[in-house]
Amino acid sequence: MVLTGEEVAKHNSEKSCWVIIHGKAYDVTEFLPEHPGGEEIILKYAGKDATEEFDPIHPRDTLDKYLDKSLHLGDVDMSTVAREAKREENDPEEVARQRSIAEMPLLSECFNLHDFEAVARRTMKKTAWGYYSSAADDEITMRENHSAYHRIWFRPQILVDVHHIDLSTTMLGTKVSAPFYVTATALGKLGHPEGEVVLTRAAATHNVIQMIPTLASCSFDELVDAAQQGDQVQWLQLYVNKDRAITQRIVQNAERRGCKGLFITVDAPQLGRREKDMRLKFVDPGSNVQKGTKTDTSQGAARAISTFIDPSLSWADIPWFKSITKMPIILKGVQRVEDVLKAVDAGVQGVVLSNHGGRQLDFARSGIEILAETMPVLREQGLDDKIDVFVDGGVRRGTDILKAMCLGAKGVGIGRPFLYAMSTYGQAGVERAMQLLKDEMEMDMRLIGCNRIEDLHPGLLDTRGLFVHSNATPVDSLSNVTYDPLIVPSQRIKAKL
Amino acid sequence: MVLTGEEVAKHNSEKSCWVIIHGKAYDVTEFLPEHPGGEEIILKYAGKDATEEFDPIHPRDTLDKYLDKSLHLGDVDMSTVAREAKREENDPEEVARQRSIAEMPLLSECFNLHDFEAVARRTMKKTAWGYYSSAADDEITMRENHSAYHRIWFRPQILVDVHHIDLSTTMLGTKVSAPFYVTATALGKLGHPEGEVVLTRAAATHNVIQMIPTLASCSFDELVDAAQQGDQVQWLQLYVNKDRAITQRIVQNAERRGCKGLFITVDAPQLGRREKDMRLKFVDPGSNVQKGTKTDTSQGAARAISTFIDPSLSWADIPWFKSITKMPIILKGVQRVEDVLKAVDAGVQGVVLSNHGGRQLDFARSGIEILAETMPVLREQGLDDKIDVFVDGGVRRGTDILKAMCLGAKGVGIGRPFLYAMSTYGQAGVERAMQLLKDEMEMDMRLIGCNRIEDLHPGLLDTRGLFVHSNATPVDSLSNVTYDPLIVPSQRIKAKL
Amino acid sequence: MVLTGEEVAKHNSEKSCWVIIHGKAYDVTEFLPEHPGGEEIILKYAGKDATEEFDPIHPRDTLDKYLDKSLHLGDVDMSTVAREAKREENDPEEVARQRSIAEMPLLSECFNLHDFEAVARRTMKKTAWGYYSSAADDEITMRENHSAYHRIWFRPQILVDVHHIDLSTTMLGTKVSAPFYVTATALGKLGHPEGEVVLTRAAATHNVIQMIPTLASCSFDELVDAAQQGDQVQWLQLYVNKDRAITQRIVQNAERRGCKGLFITVDAPQLGRREKDMRLKFVDPGSNVQKGTKTDTSQGAARAISTFIDPSLSWADIPWFKSITKMPIILKGVQRVEDVLKAVDAGVQGVVLSNHGGRQLDFARSGIEILAETMPVLREQGLDDKIDVFVDGGVRRGTDILKAMCLGAKGVGIGRPFLYAMSTYGQAGVERAMQLLKDEMEMDMRLIGCNRIEDLHPGLLDTRGLFVHSNATPVDSLSNVTYDPLIVPSQRIKAKL
Amino acid sequence: MVLTGEEVAKHNSEKSCWVIIHGKAYDVTEFLPEHPGGEEIILKYAGKDATEEFDPIHPRDTLDKYLDKSLHLGDVDMSTVAREAKREENDPEEVARQRSIAEMPLLSECFNLHDFEAVARRTMKKTAWGYYSSAADDEITMRENHSAYHRIWFRPQILVDVHHIDLSTTMLGTKVSAPFYVTATALGKLGHPEGEVVLTRAAATHNVIQMIPTLASCSFDELVDAAQQGDQVQWLQLYVNKDRAITQRIVQNAERRGCKGLFITVDAPQLGRREKDMRLKFVDPGSNVQKGTKTDTSQGAARAISTFIDPSLSWADIPWFKSITKMPIILKGVQRVEDVLKAVDAGVQGVVLSNHGGRQLDFARSGIEILAETMPVLREQGLDDKIDVFVDGGVRRGTDILKAMCLGAKGVGIGRPFLYAMSTYGQAGVERAMQLLKDEMEMDMRLIGCNRIEDLHPGLLDTRGLFVHSNATPVDSLSNVTYDPLIVPSQRIKAKL
Repeated sequence: MVLTGEEVAKHNSEKSCWVIIHGKAYDVTEFLPEHPGGEEIILKYAGKDATEEFDPIHPRDTLDKYLDKSLHLGDVDMSTVAREAKREENDPEEVARQRSIAEMPLLSECFNLHDFEAVARRTMKKTAWGYYSSAADDEITMRENHSAYHRIWFRPQILVDVHHIDLSTTMLGTKVSAPFYVTATALGKLGHPEGEVVLTRAAATHNVIQMIPTLASCSFDELVDAAQQGDQVQWLQLYVNKDRAITQRIVQNAERRGCKGLFITVDAPQLGRREKDMRLKFVDPGSNVQKGTKTDTSQGAARAISTFIDPSLSWADIPWFKSITKMPIILKGVQRVEDVLKAVDAGVQGVVLSNHGGRQLDFARSGIEILAETMPVLREQGLDDKIDVFVDGGVRRGTDILKAMCLGAKGVGIGRPFLYAMSTYGQAGVERAMQLLKDEMEMDMRLIGCNRIEDLHPGLLDTRGLFVHSNATPVDSLSNVTYDPLIVPSQRIKAKL
Repeated sequence: MVLTGEEVAKHNSEKSCWVIIHGKAYDVTEFLPEHPGGEEIILKYAGKDATEEFDPIHPRDTLDKYLDKSLHLGDVDMSTVAREAKREENDPEEVARQRSIAEMPLLSECFNLHDFEAVARRTMKKTAWGYYSSAADDEITMRENHSAYHRIWFRPQILVDVHHIDLSTTMLGTKVSAPFYVTATALGKLGHPEGEVVLTRAAATHNVIQMIPTLASCSFDELVDAAQQGDQVQWLQLYVNKDRAITQRIVQNAERRGCKGLFITVDAPQLGRREKDMRLKFVDPGSNVQKGTKTDTSQGAARAISTFIDPSLSWADIPWFKSITKMPIILKGVQRVEDVLKAVDAGVQGVVLSNHGGRQLDFARSGIEILAETMPVLREQGLDDKIDVFVDGGVRRGTDILKAMCLGAKGVGIGRPFLYAMSTYGQAGVERAMQLLKDEMEMDMRLIGCNRIEDLHPGLLDTRGLFVHSNATPVDSLSNVTYDPLIVPSQRIKAKL
Repeated sequence: MVLTGEEVAKHNSEKSCWVIIHGKAYDVTEFLPEHPGGEEIILKYAGKDATEEFDPIHPRDTLDKYLDKSLHLGDVDMSTVAREAKREENDPEEVARQRSIAEMPLLSECFNLHDFEAVARRTMKKTAWGYYSSAADDEITMRENHSAYHRIWFRPQILVDVHHIDLSTTMLGTKVSAPFYVTATALGKLGHPEGEVVLTRAAATHNVIQMIPTLASCSFDELVDAAQQGDQVQWLQLYVNKDRAITQRIVQNAERRGCKGLFITVDAPQLGRREKDMRLKFVDPGSNVQKGTKTDTSQGAARAISTFIDPSLSWADIPWFKSITKMPIILKGVQRVEDVLKAVDAGVQGVVLSNHGGRQLDFARSGIEILAETMPVLREQGLDDKIDVFVDGGVRRGTDILKAMCLGAKGVGIGRPFLYAMSTYGQAGVERAMQLLKDEMEMDMRLIGCNRIEDLHPGLLDTRGLFVHSNATPVDSLSNVTYDPLIVPSQRIKAKL
Repeated sequence: MVLTGEEVAKHNSEKSCWVIIHGKAYDVTEFLPEHPGGEEIILKYAGKDATEEFDPIHPRDTLDKYLDKSLHLGDVDMSTVAREAKREENDPEEVARQRSIAEMPLLSECFNLHDFEAVARRTMKKTAWGYYSSAADDEITMRENHSAYHRIWFRPQILVDVHHIDLSTTMLGTKVSAPFYVTATALGKLGHPEGEVVLTRAAATHNVIQMIPTLASCSFDELVDAAQQGDQVQWLQLYVNKDRAITQRIVQNAERRGCKGLFITVDAPQLGRREKDMRLKFVDPGSNVQKGTKTDTSQGAARAISTFIDPSLSWADIPWFKSITKMPIILKGVQRVEDVLKAVDAGVQGVVLSNHGGRQLDFARSGIEILAETMPVLREQGLDDKIDVFVDGGVRRGTDILKAMCLGAKGVGIGRPFLYAMSTYGQAGVERAMQLLKDEMEMDMRLIGCNRIEDLHPGLLDTRGLFVHSNATPVDSLSNVTYDPLIVPSQRIKAKL
């Protein structure tokens, strides 16, 4: 029996709450209190079609997994569902965005990774942009991640035969075409209707590794299925569940399906507050009631989807992970050399020096700075071949990647830039972004005077400024306002007639 | 007998000066020359209702204390008092402010302490804003106070079980829920009609300590009365009076009424010049007479209310303070490690490393920098448990507080941010501000890898940049004007058609 | 016989060139090629009234001294002189300036030295502003002069009895009320019709020393006459003439008239190029002829009036100066510690560490930095009482002066700020400027914890940042354009309706 | 027989492609696939007049050299050629540019080298400006080149007889009037219809050396012919061809024609990506087809004209160069002291410390920084007279040149500034630019206290800040937005009425 919109619309309250998703109705009344994102957000769609909101946040198999079949109410005749008048239609911001989409620059006009971000900023849905682009607190660390690269300068060598440049390298035993990989980022469908499979396909085109995120919009299996049979390598990024049985199932499934590395996230016992995201998601409750004094502890999508993460994860858990999988184990989010040394002791195969794209702790240092702190210590203690060191955060240029490789990284993870490329131009965008990085690196290798990635070494860099976290004395407002700056010559007519 | 407005209005000169306050008339003719704020400001209201101007600056018991009962002339029939046409009503700035108040964002849209300040800036009375927000000279130190925190970065540790976070700590023997306290700030009624009792109540809600200011708009007793009987702890901030008998009375009254700490202000032998405040208070005398060459030594409200402060206060006075009270004595406004060592020798229980919110000496260093200078010396000399070190100034984020605690502070004072929260959203605002700090700290503790405040230590920080007071070479105007900056791709239609 | 304007107007060419100055005609035909400023500028006024242009640049006795009496043609009936339609009258810039003058803020609204400069910038004649405010090349050194003070921070001491503050000190044997003096600056009549005597009178009011400039608009004797008989002390600033006889006459006249110090300028063998000044003075010759390739070697007023300066002045000349005067000799413009040591050897009494207000060599270091370089060396070599060290350049605040005194200066010279105060509010302006500095210093002394100037010492400062001449890595344009900055909460209506 | 435009216009495709250049038709059909710039750019002009596009990129003898005579089709009756309606005619940018040209400031209003650049920016053709002004990636190095000079400060010496200043010096045995030379830059006809001969003539006027570029718009012989017979010295800049026979021919021809130095470019095994240039050259293909994913490997004019450059050039080639010429050999583009030492070992006569004007590798360090790194090492190893060290990049002021000479350079190369002067005011512009530098240097020598170039030494500089590559902590957006800056006094009427 096919339901009508009218019928569904009656169930629009806490007492009876139905929602439509992909043309089917579901009774979620009893599920309301269990919803990790809070019941409020479901109630907003009670009796209505929630597909658009549902999709980016929930992998396709979510309802099957978590909602009893008895509550799957069946098909709805969508022609009978009242179309919501969307607020955005009269919203000048939304109108401007639609124009931006209509007049989007050609893909071939994107000459570097910043360009994709610029286009994304004006064409993405505000909330999606908010989720992708936001970071912790004042977003200092997020910006520092790229800024730190600007404190590293090259000392290129000349007169080396650089006819042949080879960018290929090996990560955790996999030969790849270039020293970067697609790192794990959540909620891909916010940016592209197909979600992270787009990244899978682009990674295949360029023979680089994709790290599959726990919080993908696509399900794990969709992402593995999208990979090229036989030869495309994927890694698994893991948020550890409070319920270790679930974690074990996820890990062993990943190993069975061929994943070649287990990246355990260790910098996110709780997901960060991101105020830009919160501000964009803020919904006016209609009155400024007393409850404002209570802070909103749900704090947006990120928090909603991550309540399962176990904040008690500790070094003591590492042996257990080693016992349940043969995949190499890499700790993702290490932020000090002391913990890299602990990781060596713990016998894991690698670390990712990372601050989670600046989304967790503001004033965490950049990965590249931690790398420059770490490698000399490892070398001094003869441990640099005992552990593979990766780095991510802030990478936008071929030179950034080469700087990391000079310092001793085994590979560089890139997240947001590929999301922006995907959100604007889809797979072609991601592929072009990867190609641009390769083009830049090929030229830069020539100009640095190196043929292969393994030729890169710290002597090619000047890192003296890297560790200086200065800021200027506050601005001298009165002097600045009063000073009459020099000018260039004005036009003749205006100036002299 | 009830006086009429007409009757009062006749006494509008130096010869006979009456003013109306809270519906009662007072003859202040003889008091004019003694008024600490100068007679001019009273004469402005001669024959008129002065309540609005009077209230924020004078505690309610002022007239009873300082004006002979014979000069209390009794009730005025307020319906007969001519309503002043306020200049502000046609002032575009005031119109804009009223609109800002009408359209104030919801409290729940304030996601951090800066947000309250932003709302306060557009909704507070200009003169009140001027008094709260101003600081010494070029306001360099005021801004440096926060800016210095941005030169300190974290070195977080990972894989610590951070399931349970406990922010509580102990200050001068009092267990508090979080490592911050409400520091003393003057003239609370400029921001809120009820004054500092609003802060008292919010402090109770959150179980943090309030430091009662000497220059509160509310009287000392009002503030103690507002505290929760039995368990709410308050401290006393003291400006030392030239007349030590008055000081003794104040201190012993505070002790009797239960105050648990005596914070003697040592950075303000004279209250600072604050030009933003002076400029806002400036009254056009109507002609640019010769007297412009004489500078105005009264210099606004702050100076007016503080003429009693004793500039001869010195180390020699400390024993006397110890003799009149059993409260722990803390020196507020210490600015160099040498003076912290002197304080240890003088046998006081604590110091607050502070520059008075940047309101006194411009180019005084930030409290956090002095803390980073002080603690290693104390530790080296084995004195770090001989004295409790507090710090205030510039704190806006949970990370700021944690940085101070990592360095070794016992607690962090916060002033302006709570004033701004109070001035915009009242008690609810202050409570939300406190909750936001707690939320931030709880998450940050997790991300730093610490469970309790006492787990924090200097090794979690990178302070290498803290002591560098650099500023850039002056701007190269011609190069900057001439350089043609790179751009991101423009929209297709505009660019190509 | 009284001449008519018509008569004079006939002599308007190189062949016969008459000009009117203060109502008298002069035949300057033969003088044309000798004019230090070039003949062009005189020819502009051939046959016309040149008073306005003449006055600021030439002391009143110039014509008597340099033009043969036979060429003094006598009085002109000024009613017959055609009034020049001034270009400025329709010039929007000039109209705006006249409005600025009409609406000038009250003197009592000027709360610091920057304020005078701000008023001067909008009320002074463009060319006068150009001459006063300009500096060498990119004006980096001029701005660095003040900026350097912002890299010095205080380490104040507390709990010192600061009831009584005494700002007086002694410079070259003269007791003065405050540790600053009025340094020599040229062409005072550009800013005020009476010229430098205004400064003389203000210096008397405040009991500070004035240094008389060689290139004053007023004559030397006018300036000495303006001083208070008996007790006002003046110094002489000297540009050394190629003709030593003239120099000897000037020096000995100064000594005879009571000057107490001879400050020989050693940083200006040639006066600087100041492009802001040149651009403002530029006159469109009407066609872009080939001669553009030849650079204009006259380069404005400064160069014009200074062609007599001897670029061959050297250390070998010092003994001669010592032989012709008993006044203490001070070298003005020393810029490296090595030359301070040479000055000690040469037996002079003092040096002024100065870069000529940034008007000579761009990228010369600030006086305060040279002071911080010099004093430790002098102390180490036991020479700090063998020579008096003064400093000038960039001083705007009481804190600036105290920083210099802490480092070991005997006095601080101030130039432009007093010129700006004079150019806007005349003598009253200069007096207020001086009073403001004294007020600031008195308070700052209290806040630093010192009673007398001699109590100041280097331990009260943190100069670690002073010697760092950094500038930031060039701006990352694409990142900056792409980054979406955090915002404070918007108004409710706009955001939510 | 004279061809008609109609006739030519028929050959407008890949199958038969004719173009008109300087009134003559050429059949380039077979040449299409060989065109280094790609066939696309030729096809744009198939059947049309391509002179304007052809001229700046190809020396006049190109067609004779590379296109078989049989394909020279003879004269075209230009009156029959359809005039292209140029897109630019209605382009607002082009209209603005034409107005800028019409109202160009007088040459004599250009007071420094920045001024020429400012005029060039608004008067040059966008594509020409793009080619000249662009640099690698984010153009950080290009700007750092000048910015680095701002981290070097002077320590001038005083009381030196500086009556006579001599700027002359000797470079590779040639006496020149000043310590700078015109370095090699490509495609001069983009800026001036006559191309690099303009620079040749200006160099003659000022007796400085011109380095002839391999990629000049003028042919090598034109440039040598333009030099003054007998006494004008030129050097040859060499991009080494994959075909060494061609290289040998070029080198030996240059030696025969009198060149006095061979500057082998070693920092450009591949020409750089310059995105500003690419963006300006971008042509909308009409649809956003899939090919966007492929990056454009031709990348504009620079790449097009440089495909012959040999990326396998290495130290092993140096002996061969020594065998084919007696000219001194200088390596242009050395970027680290280690390679300077290798150059000494290789027995070459000199190096140019250069990063190719920032056009190759972004984050390559400035020449002046490499100089400051190199000279102390050379001196320490006693090698400073074994090799001549030149430097180029970022020079805009006389002070820049003197800083380089103080550090130990033999000469300073200047490129873009002379191009901008040439592109705006032709030969007169270049001559004035050179004169301005000389004027600045003459004055600066006086102010530093040196008479001759050889008197300059490192002790006259403070380079402590030079090696610090810092950037500030990312901006604290919320604090900055919230802070209410101090203001200067407003006008009286607005503020007070």
